[in-house]
Amino acid sequence: MVDQGKAKRGIPPKSEFNSWYPAIVEIADLVDKRYPIKGMDVWKPYGWKAMSLIDKITRSEMERTYHDEYRFPLLVPEDLLDKENRLVARLKAARDAGVNPSELRLDEDDAGFKKEVYWVKHGGENELDVPMFLRPTSETPMYTMFSLWIRSHADLPLKTFQIVNTFRYETKQTRSFIRVREIHFFEAHTVHRNEEEATMQIEEDANMIQNILHELCLPNIISKRPIWDTFPGAWYTTAADVVMPNGRTLQVGTYHHYRDQWAKSFDLTYEDENGDANFCHQTTFGMSERLLGAIVGLHGDDRGLIFPPSISPIQVIIMPVATHISPDVIVMAKNIKNILADSGIRTKIDDRDIRSGTKHYDWEIKGVPIRLEVGPRDLANNQCVISLRTGGKENLSLDNLEISINKYLDLVSDNLRDNANEIHKNMVHKLPDSSMEDGNLIFTSKIQDNLVYELAFDGNDADAELLEKSTGLTLLGDCEIIYDVAKPCVITGNLTTKKQHLAKMY
Amino acid sequence: MVDQGKAKRGIPPKSEFNSWYPAIVEIADLVDKRYPIKGMDVWKPYGWKAMSLIDKITRSEMERTYHDEYRFPLLVPEDLLDKENRLVARLKAARDAGVNPSELRLDEDDAGFKKEVYWVKHGGENELDVPMFLRPTSETPMYTMFSLWIRSHADLPLKTFQIVNTFRYETKQTRSFIRVREIHFFEAHTVHRNEEEATMQIEEDANMIQNILHELCLPNIISKRPIWDTFPGAWYTTAADVVMPNGRTLQVGTYHHYRDQWAKSFDLTYEDENGDANFCHQTTFGMSERLLGAIVGLHGDDRGLIFPPSISPIQVIIMPVATHISPDVIVMAKNIKNILADSGIRTKIDDRDIRSGTKHYDWEIKGVPIRLEVGPRDLANNQCVISLRTGGKENLSLDNLEISINKYLDLVSDNLRDNANEIHKNMVHKLPDSSMEDGNLIFTSKIQDNLVYELAFDGNDADAELLEKSTGLTLLGDCEIIYDVAKPCVITGNLTTKKQHLAKMY
Repeated sequence: MVDQGKAKRGIPPKSEFNSWYPAIVEIADLVDKRYPIKGMDVWKPYGWKAMSLIDKITRSEMERTYHDEYRFPLLVPEDLLDKENRLVARLKAARDAGVNPSELRLDEDDAGFKKEVYWVKHGGENELDVPMFLRPTSETPMYTMFSLWIRSHADLPLKTFQIVNTFRYETKQTRSFIRVREIHFFEAHTVHRNEEEATMQIEEDANMIQNILHELCLPNIISKRPIWDTFPGAWYTTAADVVMPNGRTLQVGTYHHYRDQWAKSFDLTYEDENGDANFCHQTTFGMSERLLGAIVGLHGDDRGLIFPPSISPIQVIIMPVATHISPDVIVMAKNIKNILADSGIRTKIDDRDIRSGTKHYDWEIKGVPIRLEVGPRDLANNQCVISLRTGGKENLSLDNLEISINKYLDLVSDNLRDNANEIHKNMVHKLPDSSMEDGNLIFTSKIQDNLVYELAFDGNDADAELLEKSTGLTLLGDCEIIYDVAKPCVITGNLTTKKQHLAKMY
Repeated sequence: MVDQGKAKRGIPPKSEFNSWYPAIVEIADLVDKRYPIKGMDVWKPYGWKAMSLIDKITRSEMERTYHDEYRFPLLVPEDLLDKENRLVARLKAARDAGVNPSELRLDEDDAGFKKEVYWVKHGGENELDVPMFLRPTSETPMYTMFSLWIRSHADLPLKTFQIVNTFRYETKQTRSFIRVREIHFFEAHTVHRNEEEATMQIEEDANMIQNILHELCLPNIISKRPIWDTFPGAWYTTAADVVMPNGRTLQVGTYHHYRDQWAKSFDLTYEDENGDANFCHQTTFGMSERLLGAIVGLHGDDRGLIFPPSISPIQVIIMPVATHISPDVIVMAKNIKNILADSGIRTKIDDRDIRSGTKHYDWEIKGVPIRLEVGPRDLANNQCVISLRTGGKENLSLDNLEISINKYLDLVSDNLRDNANEIHKNMVHKLPDSSMEDGNLIFTSKIQDNLVYELAFDGNDADAELLEKSTGLTLLGDCEIIYDVAKPCVITGNLTTKKQHLAKMY
């Protein structure tokens, strides 16, 4: 019957990931892609609820670390870009003097920004005096205001965040949650007195993103991005990538140390204890609906989604069975629901008058972690039957039910982490230590673009370019985890503990 | 000292409302109006938190009544307007046949819509094939999708809502929360099988808005808007108006019965039990950040805001005093905070090293309902000193503190309701029963535009126009509350129980 249903609803097997993913986001009712603008999906209640629960985890981390929630306007007047242009000009001058680390990033980005935004040039039937664009991210509007707010050291640190819609005029193929044109976006922006305090913020960000990814059961690779993939104006960019089952890496979060580069463009100074003016140091931390894309991609299976309990809109689905034999089963189901709901567990009763098999099938697709069945026999035995979406089915006493359910929810999370780690490990292959022979790369013929390759690498930019061109993959940057024992760099052969990954990025 | 501070921070007296309001929203740190687009303020954390708590009350009402939360795209392609144009065309035809009730609304609105939106015609450097606009409200994007979702009676009722940013190219003078260009907006859209079920929804909306306004301690006038102020395509529009202290009415919510007028344009049909196709009936219900504007305007006083406890970001501010005498006071303050926080009361300790008077002054401006002071003497007596922002100060035992604090929070709400009702009553004057003499209005010389006038009225559209023109005020529409005993209409002299209000609307 499951197979029949599967055919009916058209879920491709997950082994065909590139068909499975776009199908499951609609079949599980997360989004509707039929809205008549490509890359702008309608969030259905089930998807929006999951996203809101992810936001809740983010907000809780922000609150724990004393960030305040702001809401900035969506529209940015074009003339504010003058300050960004000054940043670019200064970085260019530094590049020409051979001192700026962001030099490689500049050339390709110079005109890039204006190409990627939506423009508002008309209000009603009038042409606006100053064109405006829809924020792709909020450095410009925020720092314009920060420079009004910050006067002295007592105003620092300033730790802000917002969760908003951002926009990108995307010309590549769009994919729900992964590459969209209206983006549900989280951004934290902080301002500090000096480089050290900004660096401490980066460490806090690193800690927060691991807490969040742990809650979402997502293994990930943390890399300091190569210079040419650093955010414009950043001193360095660190990114969290999740390896999707098709071997492509999905960047789900980034945090940037700006030093005082942006501050110099936005006149962001503070007066210190001695009355001297200093430029502020800044950081940003960004995540988006891609987190949901990673959850869908990594945890789902042939039968549908599997939601981590932390963000599952429904954590426990209760199914009264054989209610025609004993209506008391309904009463029992409601009692169970009340007990669980009272202890904060998101619970729903499915009392639709349809076949049990169809119900099972529906909730499997939607990835509900725990299913409880209660029937006439269970009534007598003060028990129910519990099934985990990650596998396993057994009788469960109703005594202290909320305690045992919480344990089972933790078990599902553990299962998901184990499964995801397994997928991750299987996708990440080691490159042979010695891949060069007579100055030529000899492994490239064996490279698959559906795998991620781990390698020892301490080469220069030219070496990196050679690696990327000959493999068709991208270097993620220096991995936060280094080798315990030095290995020879795949290009130079020099011993190094530096680890990198080559991957096809989303 | 308060006066000194007042002068320093520049709060005008509330009797000068039109200066007080724009000053207090910034002095209390709700928004910053210096963002370089007029009518697009930056929400500061304190303002955003209050707004989020209003949203929470709204969401809770939506959940109670089984509405699901969606999130639709911000951008709407211009060609979707074809369907709206069909609506307009059909209503025009009906008007020409003399049957449509919305006739008066049409002429002025025909071109109005396109004049009021922001247009996106460029993505990057490209001109878009189809221009898009920023949603002013979401009928068009939503109903486009509804027509894909609704097939049979089993899909109904469909009860949806979203809380989103909407946009209006506003040419009038902007005011924080009251008239802005990026609007924090709530909109519920429902679809039903027939007119009766849609009418029941309107009754549910009427009930919900009263629950919400009760939580916010806002007295209000409910009126069925005159035909010329009915939402385009609506059968009728009901509105909730709050009378601000300057005598202007602020429309804070509306709910519209569409019958099947929109459905006919969007091909919104369902198959009933007999297999027959029928047009759906629809309603909408909208509110916005104006709720916060009404709270600021109605409850504040010369010393600053007064927040209703239900949405106050901080409900209790704790001030340890004379901590240099006894550091145990700090411990006590923290204990109190933990006790209150554990029972869900939003509590903060102000342990800044500044004068008590300055602290009092700060939290008065921010409208925190309850202030607790704890000092060395209180330690010995197991008590603290409680002050209510609405007035009153006394010793309070720490026994069962969370219970007594909740009672005091309720007392503040009751005080706010009483005060607001008093203001409301004082602003709403009765027009003399007999205001016509020899066919002329004789009361117009006494009309003040800072008052609201209640009157018996059963005249026709021409009578209404005469009233509005001769007074310079606007009729709010038939009030939901009618006179117990019929009175003569101020224009026709006919006895009627129908009540209306004349006011200057925001």
